[in-house]
Formats: sequence, C-alpha cells, structure tokens
Amino acid sequence: MTFPSWLSQLCRGLSRPIRRTTQPIWGSLYRSLVQSSQRRNPEFSSFAVRTNTCGELRSSHLGQEVTLCGWIQYRRQNTFLVLRDFHGLVQVVIPQDESAASVRKILCEAPVESVVQVSGTVISRPAGQENPKMPTGEIEIKVKTAELLNACKKLPFEIKDFMKKTEALRLQYRYLDLRSFQMQYNLRLRSQMVMKMREYLCNLHGFVDIETPTLFKRTPGGAKEFLVPSREPGKFYSLPQSPQQFKQLLMVGGLDRYFQVARCYRDEGSRPDRQPEFTQIDIEMSFVDQTGIQSLIEGLLQYSWPNDKDPVVVPFPTVTFTEALATYGTDKPDTRFGMKIIDISDVFRNTEIGFLQDALSKPHGTVKAICIPEGAKYLKRKDIESIRKFAADHFNQCCLLGKLRLECADLLETRGMVLRDPTLFSFLWVVDFPLFLPKEENPRELESAHHPFTAPHPSDIHLLYTEPKKARSQHYDLVLNGNEIGGGSIRIHNAELQRYILATLLKEDVKMLSHLLQALDYGAPPHGGIALGLDRLICLVTGSPSIRDVIAFPKSFRGHDLMSNAPDSIPSEELKPYHIRVSWPTDSKAERAH
Amino acid sequence: MTFPSWLSQLCRGLSRPIRRTTQPIWGSLYRSLVQSSQRRNPEFSSFAVRTNTCGELRSSHLGQEVTLCGWIQYRRQNTFLVLRDFHGLVQVVIPQDESAASVRKILCEAPVESVVQVSGTVISRPAGQENPKMPTGEIEIKVKTAELLNACKKLPFEIKDFMKKTEALRLQYRYLDLRSFQMQYNLRLRSQMVMKMREYLCNLHGFVDIETPTLFKRTPGGAKEFLVPSREPGKFYSLPQSPQQFKQLLMVGGLDRYFQVARCYRDEGSRPDRQPEFTQIDIEMSFVDQTGIQSLIEGLLQYSWPNDKDPVVVPFPTVTFTEALATYGTDKPDTRFGMKIIDISDVFRNTEIGFLQDALSKPHGTVKAICIPEGAKYLKRKDIESIRKFAADHFNQCCLLGKLRLECADLLETRGMVLRDPTLFSFLWVVDFPLFLPKEENPRELESAHHPFTAPHPSDIHLLYTEPKKARSQHYDLVLNGNEIGGGSIRIHNAELQRYILATLLKEDVKMLSHLLQALDYGAPPHGGIALGLDRLICLVTGSPSIRDVIAFPKSFRGHDLMSNAPDSIPSEELKPYHIRVSWPTDSKAERAH
Repeated sequence: MTFPSWLSQLCRGLSRPIRRTTQPIWGSLYRSLVQSSQRRNPEFSSFAVRTNTCGELRSSHLGQEVTLCGWIQYRRQNTFLVLRDFHGLVQVVIPQDESAASVRKILCEAPVESVVQVSGTVISRPAGQENPKMPTGEIEIKVKTAELLNACKKLPFEIKDFMKKTEALRLQYRYLDLRSFQMQYNLRLRSQMVMKMREYLCNLHGFVDIETPTLFKRTPGGAKEFLVPSREPGKFYSLPQSPQQFKQLLMVGGLDRYFQVARCYRDEGSRPDRQPEFTQIDIEMSFVDQTGIQSLIEGLLQYSWPNDKDPVVVPFPTVTFTEALATYGTDKPDTRFGMKIIDISDVFRNTEIGFLQDALSKPHGTVKAICIPEGAKYLKRKDIESIRKFAADHFNQCCLLGKLRLECADLLETRGMVLRDPTLFSFLWVVDFPLFLPKEENPRELESAHHPFTAPHPSDIHLLYTEPKKARSQHYDLVLNGNEIGGGSIRIHNAELQRYILATLLKEDVKMLSHLLQALDYGAPPHGGIALGLDRLICLVTGSPSIRDVIAFPKSFRGHDLMSNAPDSIPSEELKPYHIRVSWPTDSKAERAH
Repeated sequence: MTFPSWLSQLCRGLSRPIRRTTQPIWGSLYRSLVQSSQRRNPEFSSFAVRTNTCGELRSSHLGQEVTLCGWIQYRRQNTFLVLRDFHGLVQVVIPQDESAASVRKILCEAPVESVVQVSGTVISRPAGQENPKMPTGEIEIKVKTAELLNACKKLPFEIKDFMKKTEALRLQYRYLDLRSFQMQYNLRLRSQMVMKMREYLCNLHGFVDIETPTLFKRTPGGAKEFLVPSREPGKFYSLPQSPQQFKQLLMVGGLDRYFQVARCYRDEGSRPDRQPEFTQIDIEMSFVDQTGIQSLIEGLLQYSWPNDKDPVVVPFPTVTFTEALATYGTDKPDTRFGMKIIDISDVFRNTEIGFLQDALSKPHGTVKAICIPEGAKYLKRKDIESIRKFAADHFNQCCLLGKLRLECADLLETRGMVLRDPTLFSFLWVVDFPLFLPKEENPRELESAHHPFTAPHPSDIHLLYTEPKKARSQHYDLVLNGNEIGGGSIRIHNAELQRYILATLLKEDVKMLSHLLQALDYGAPPHGGIALGLDRLICLVTGSPSIRDVIAFPKSFRGHDLMSNAPDSIPSEELKPYHIRVSWPTDSKAERAH
C-alpha cells in the first residue's frame, strides 16, 4: 500500500462521532448518512452528464459502461488515478497502449484537483489488488475517453494537509475547505436532518411552513438588532432576532400550527462562536400546553435523528430551574455525568471550623460539596492546585460550583478518565424559570427573564399582583449535553394581562407593541411555542468544535466574511439615497487620510 | 336557510381556481388541498387540548365524545352556534335545559370571533335539517361543557364583509385578514407546494439544502441592494439580491447539487406588486447542461403541482428569444391564446399605400399584423378607437405589437369572449437570449443581458472576440401565462473566459470579484442553475390578484409594514454604534422641527 495514510483511512468506517482532530473518513458512515434517512435512494445522477457517481460503483456494476465526473484526488506513477466526487472515490486505470495516447496525456498531465470526465467500463481489480477498506475497492474503471473539464492552478495549500490549516485560511478559501469530507458530511447531515424535521412537522402533524419578514420594526430595547436604512429620511428597518411577534400574530390569524426554518439576526459585535445571522427551527401552535410542546419536540428530535447515532430516548427528563441550580450550579446542566452538588450543611451544623460556621450563620448560608469519583486516583497535586485557584478566581459568583464541576470534569478527562461518553446525547428539560429578574442596572425594577410575552405559571398568577419577583413562568429550555439548544414558552393570550405586565410591571412603552396588544383583543387563542438553535444542534450532533463547521459560509468571530471581505466600504454617493452619512471617529479620520 | 350568503357558499365545492372576486369557499376544495399532497393525513390535533378539528367531523364520528376549540363564526337565536377553525365549520347546539345554564350563558354571551372550547357528543342532525353543502352538515355537537378561552372586542370591521375592505385596512389588521378562507388557502397551498418541491429535490434527486448568508458584500453595480451598517466605521454589509455567488462557490466546493428556498432583497423604492424581500427557489448543479436543468424544473413543477389543478404536461414548449419577439412581441409570451404576430410584408411588397411603402423601404422594415378572432363580432367601435389610441401612445416602442396583443385580449374578454381559460397553466421556455445588450446610457458599451456569469452559447464563443453583440447566451427563462416565473443559465466555469468578459468586454473592476475568479482557477466544475420566483408562482397558481395575497405579512407598495409601522424612526443615540448619522433633506428638517 502506497496510499498516503489519510487516503487509506478515508475508506475505513467509523461508528463514533467524527471530531475535527480525527482524519477525514469517507466510507460506510457517509453511505449510511446518504441512504438512511430516505425512503428510497435519491438519484444522484439524474439530469447530469454522468451516468454514475464515483462513490457508488460496486461489483454489481461490473461490465457496465459508465461516465464519471470528478476531481483528480491522486495519481500514482502514471498508471492509475483516483477520482473523487461528493459520493466517494474510484480508481481509474490510465491506459498504456499507444492508441490511447491522447487519453493518457489528459489523465497524466492534469494537475491534482483538476476536474475531468471519463467514460469507460467497470472492471474487476486484478486478484490481490482489491482494497477492502474502500467502498469501491473491488472495481476499477477501464477508460475509453477522457476530457479535461477544468484544470486546477497551484492551490494555496495542499488539500490533503488541509485539516491542519488555520481557520482563517480555511474561511478565506472556503470553497476549497468545502471539498473536505468533514464539511461535506456536516452540511449534508444538516440538510437531511432539517428535511426530516419538515416531514415530521408538515406531513405528520399538519404544521404550515410560513415565511415571516426580516425587514421589520425595531423592538423595544432591541439593542442587538441590525439596522437597515430605508429611502425615507430617518426611517430604518431592523433585522429581527426572532419571528416572535409574527408567530404570535399567525396564531391570532388562525394559522393554528406554524413552523419556519427562520433566519435570525443578532448584532453582538465580536463574540467567539456566535454568528451575526443564525438559524432557528421556529415553532408555534394554538390550543397547547407546556407538555404538548415538549412531546412535540421530543418526537421531532427522535424522528429526525441521524440513523448512524444511537436513537433518541423519550420522554426527556425534566428538572426545575431551582433544582438545576441546586444540583448542577447552572440552568443548563451537562447530565452526561454525575458529580452533583450535594448540600452537606447538616454535617457541619455543629462544626467548630470557623469559615464553615461563618457561612452557615448567614441567611440562606449552606455548605455544598462535589464528590469527584476516583479523584484521588486521577488528579495530581497540581490539578488540586488549579481547582483551588479556579475557585478563588470565581469566588462569590453564585454559579461557582457549576463551573467547578465542569472544570473538574475537564481535568479528569485530561488525566484519562472517560467521563462524558462521546456517543451519548443527554437531553434535559429545564422548567419553572422565574418570570422576572431584577434589572442589572437598577435591581428594584424588574425585567423579563426571557421575553415579556411569556405566560406566568398558572399557580403563580396571583403573585403578579403581590410579589411578582416570586412568580414562575411557563418558560422551558431544552438542554443537550450542557448546551441550551432551545427555549420557548406558553404565551400570554389575554390582552389585559399582557398590558399589565408590559406597562405596570416592566414599565415599557406599550405604544411600540400596540399592534400586538390589539391583536390579543380580537380573539387570540391560547398558544405557545419554541425555537431550536439549529446551528448549535447540528454542531453537537456532528461533534464539531465550532458552529462555523456546520455553516457553509460563516463569518469570522469579528463578523467578517474572509472570502469576499464583507463588510466593505461604500462610496458616500451610494449612501445618499438612504439619507445617511458616516460619522468617522476622530482617530480613524486620521487613519483614513493615509 | 338563514345562513348569510357567504356562509352558505362557504360550504360549496369549487373546481376552478378561486379569485379574490369570488366569495370565500370552505369545503371540498380545501379538503382536497389538505389531503392530496400527503402520503397520509397529518394529525391536526396531536399535542393539542382538542380531540378533533371542527372541520373533520362526519357521520363516522357519531357518538364520539369530542373536545373542540375554535372561533365563534355565527350564532342563531341562541339555539346554535357555528364554530370555526382552520379546517372548517361545525354546528354546536346550545343546551336549553336549566341544568346547563352556565354553559348556555358562555355560548350565548361570547361575542362573535371569541375563542371557545367545547366538549360534547357528535350527534346526527334532526331529519331534514342536514346541510349537504357543508362538509360537516350531517352532524352537530351536543355540548356538555364550554369554556370561554378569550373574548373578542368589537372588531374594526365585520369579518363577513371583509373581502370588500381596502387593502390598507387588510394589511393593518393582517392577523384578522389571515382568518379568511382565501388567505388560509393561499398560505397552506404555498407551504405544501414548497414541501413537495423539497421532497423532489432532496429525497428524489439528492439535492442538498444549504443556507447562504444574507449579510454579504455589495456586488459591483448593486445599486438595488439594501445596506446594513456594521460596527466598523464606514463598513457596510449588503443584503444580496440572490445567492448567485454563493451557489457557484458551492459548486466549486464539490457540493454538486444545491438548493435553497432563499430570501432575497431588492430595494426598488416604490413599485407596485414588488416586495423589498422575496423568496426564490434557488437551484444549482454541477455537470449539467441546459436541457438537464429544464428537465429538472419540469419534473419539479409536475411533482409539486396541487392535485386540485389539472396536471402539468411536460416537456414544456421552447421558443428562442428571437422567435418570441417576432411572434408575440415580448420575451415572456402569454401562450394561453393565439393571436400571433404575422409578418405580412410580402403581401404589401408592391403596395402603393404610402406609409406601408415607407416602412418597407427602411432597413429591416416590415409590416406585421395580429388577427383578432371574431373581432368584428365582439369589439365595438369605441374598442377600435381605444386600440388605435393605445397604438399611438406606444408608437415607436419595439414591444408595441406585444402590448397591443394583450390589450386586444383584455378588450375581447371585457366583451365576453373566453380567450384565456382560467384553469389553463401554459408554461414556456424562452432560450437563446443575447449575452450582452448595449448600455442604455452609452450604447457603444456593453452590459450583461442577465448577469456576467452567464456562459455564452457554445456555437457563439468565437463571436466574443469578433462581434460580442451578436453572441447568444445559455440563459433560459421560464414563462407561465405571460409571466416570467424563473430564469437561469449555464455559468462560465473557465476563469480566463470569465476575466475576459468582466474586464475586457464589460469593463468591470475585477477586484470586487477576485474571490470568485480565484475559485474558478481551482478546479471549478461545469455548472448551471435556475431560480424560480416563488411568490409570483404561488400567486399564479392560486389565481391571486397580487403577490401580497400569498405572503403572510407583506409590505405596502411603498415598502411599509402597515401593521407595525415599519420602517420607523431610531433615536440618534442608537445610530452611534454604527457610526452613521441621518442626513436630513433641507425641507424635511423644517418638518421634523414641528
């Protein structure tokens, strides 16, 4: 075998999630992805000039005349080359006889990654030369004609070493990065999972796919919304963070069951692993309660889950917000492992240890512990030191124990313990969130814990008029392996209650939302919904290190498109129709003068 | 029958496309829509508090205990009311006995369009009281319990007279307008047709649904692109008019078969029946020629066509651009009727009629005619006069005869002739467009007839270097009943040819497109694609007068959201992070001061 190692590995099947750190694999896993989620295999060569894909040929095709199109992956000593398309690899024998000189010339001279079309016969590989690790390893193509469709110039990097390139280079040449197995796998899995979700929602449960506008009006306090200047002086559209208002209005309009794979926008400046535009599976339905939405989503994930993963077990466990904080020190617990936070106050109730007694004597003072299984065996002295330092650094943060739990898990895994099974997907509902939180800038005022349309918990409605801070909401979060992948709520459908919460409790200007309040007055049905963060979900399913690995053309963490160089300067002439001017900061004026 | 007329008509089946001018119908047509396009009926009541929808109950449900939720459509003499949900209507008997006083109170006092939940038994209507025109007309509901879920305040208009309201009022109260049969029908048909398209592309033909960014870089000459200020001074994103560059880059990335139901943006200011954001079915594939794309689209429309319409017949006829102009006087001919333009120059070659001789003596001078069938019978003297005036008004416009043909058709139909069968969908491919057109502002320079990535016709490549004006392209338009509903082309995959066309022929600044040119250098496969205008297509399929009738929340023709009042003013404080200021026009400064 003189295949380079990545190529030989390419044909080995993998049964675990692929991570960026492993070599790209192109074989049984991919085939199962292509075939599993469809009722019948799609015709990948319909309407095209090829008769077959490179990756589909088997012994059953022996003797067939085929036409293939693909990229030259590799050539060995001018005797054969390996042709690649999205479906896989196939070996092509370069003819050696004089009569085929022109074909040989094309196949021997075209640079790697050039695009060629070959026609020929599927033949058996000579005995002993089969490659059992390659799906097409029993056959090869005896070429009759060949055509160079496009020659490839010298690449900015060798494709085979590509996985080691910096992310900036990968994003700059995204169209080359997309040729990698991993990106093909991620984007195809995403497409198929979304397709299955659509089948479930639309065909099985009568949901209606409705597109809502993205050029909308600024929502009150919508400080993270991108603006779009209009041709009217001083008037701006805004790109909404979610279709929240529209989906509620659709319920008022009797659409009953709405979903949308919705593009949403959030301008958070530079934040790692966030994208200025992102996608959510957006769902709303009428005449439903919290358990109805939860069952819907459990069924949705079960139905759309890739066949090459362990099936999703439903129903998902549920914890309350209070329990989650007490047990895991976070409202998005990673339940793939234990190491729960235990209240050991009682043990120390009569202690003479000073700092413990101090703690217990304070109101709500507790002593809590995390038991690290086999910690003494796995953790070294310097690990204990780093835990101690971590604790000191995060002292007085209420989520300290939750962070400490994850920190310890990381340490244990660094030391070789398998704590979080990489094939495990651990879903969890978190419910009974508080409806309001004290405002950060003025803790005597309230703000919505999620958004002002969230309905209060049915048992807590009376608290709105007495102790609103104590009211729980009908909000629910869906957590997967410690990541929030979705959230939703039963909404307020009573105009009076909505007005009371907006105007009296939240002190919002209700004029901005008059259309919504009015809609609630005109026969709004009880309704609720949820939104799943698609990018994050696919990221977890594919085991990708970043959501940028499951988006075809992501922005850099500074919000730049490194391929096209967006955002870009605009001649001031072109700003005129929008009645805006650039306010150059004083220091960059100087910069611009250069 | 004391049903108001629209309600009794509501239950009559229609076999023809519904137009806005007809009364809303809610019956067999709707049921066929709901049921036809699915493998099995969706469960419309899963996860909900109801057991059934109002519209689904039949004699087969007799004796069943059901819980229904819906809007009070109508109440008659406090003896029964008609409950409505998206699925249809059902009659509910208001109990008269004293023991049910509380139920009676609820059902008798709730205003029309209030939302109620009722539980009870499905019973037969008394003999003679069945309503054969109503799908649920054999049964009624004997109520045991009732709950008022939300009371409806006095509506801004009566729902039953709604169809006659102005469009501005409909858009302001869109959530009420959406309750109309017509809007429910349009949006549900749209959802189902798109779902079928996805099944065809994704499940049958292996296309990958890939989302491309909408925050992108301004394209050269993209004067109709909305701008989005970024937090970097002077740097703007732009909302693209189509994913054209991205889909070509996906082909370079080996994605092979891409589709997307893509949101696109075009800022054309105020134009009737255009929307600032619109949706296209965006498709691109590798290793394909023009006939491949055409067959793909014919299959797509055939597969996704609603079952309540006549099936789509394929293949669609094809005319060349030149033939279309000669025969129909337009590049988007309405082929539902004849009245073709006929060249009768030869008849008049030796005429002595002065103005005809004048015309024929000019270079390319011709005499052309349209034969109006039974025109003498249908057209009145004042019609002839109006045709004459129309011709005079449009004199010297090359498309005069095409316009005249449509004008005559309108006149004939006004006079009672059925020229364009409303159930007929007449598709047509228009091909062999010119690759370039003379620039309007400087006719000695060239601009792309469509876009600069369009490949030249294979037979005309040599003309690029000699007479580029004469070169035809591999662009194709899809026309339906005289409307362009799609367009696409085989693209240039050769970097050298693309550079020559951009830099030498079009004199564009290639720096703006350097990423695309570079991508073509690195093994770009031959590829082509198409985009279908979804809003227009659904508008034609549903027989709607405007695309605003097939969009849930459209903008007015001035680009306003009349419900929420977008676009809106933004405090100048909130413009600061984007480094922009409003340039108030001099006259509106004064206005603003008030």
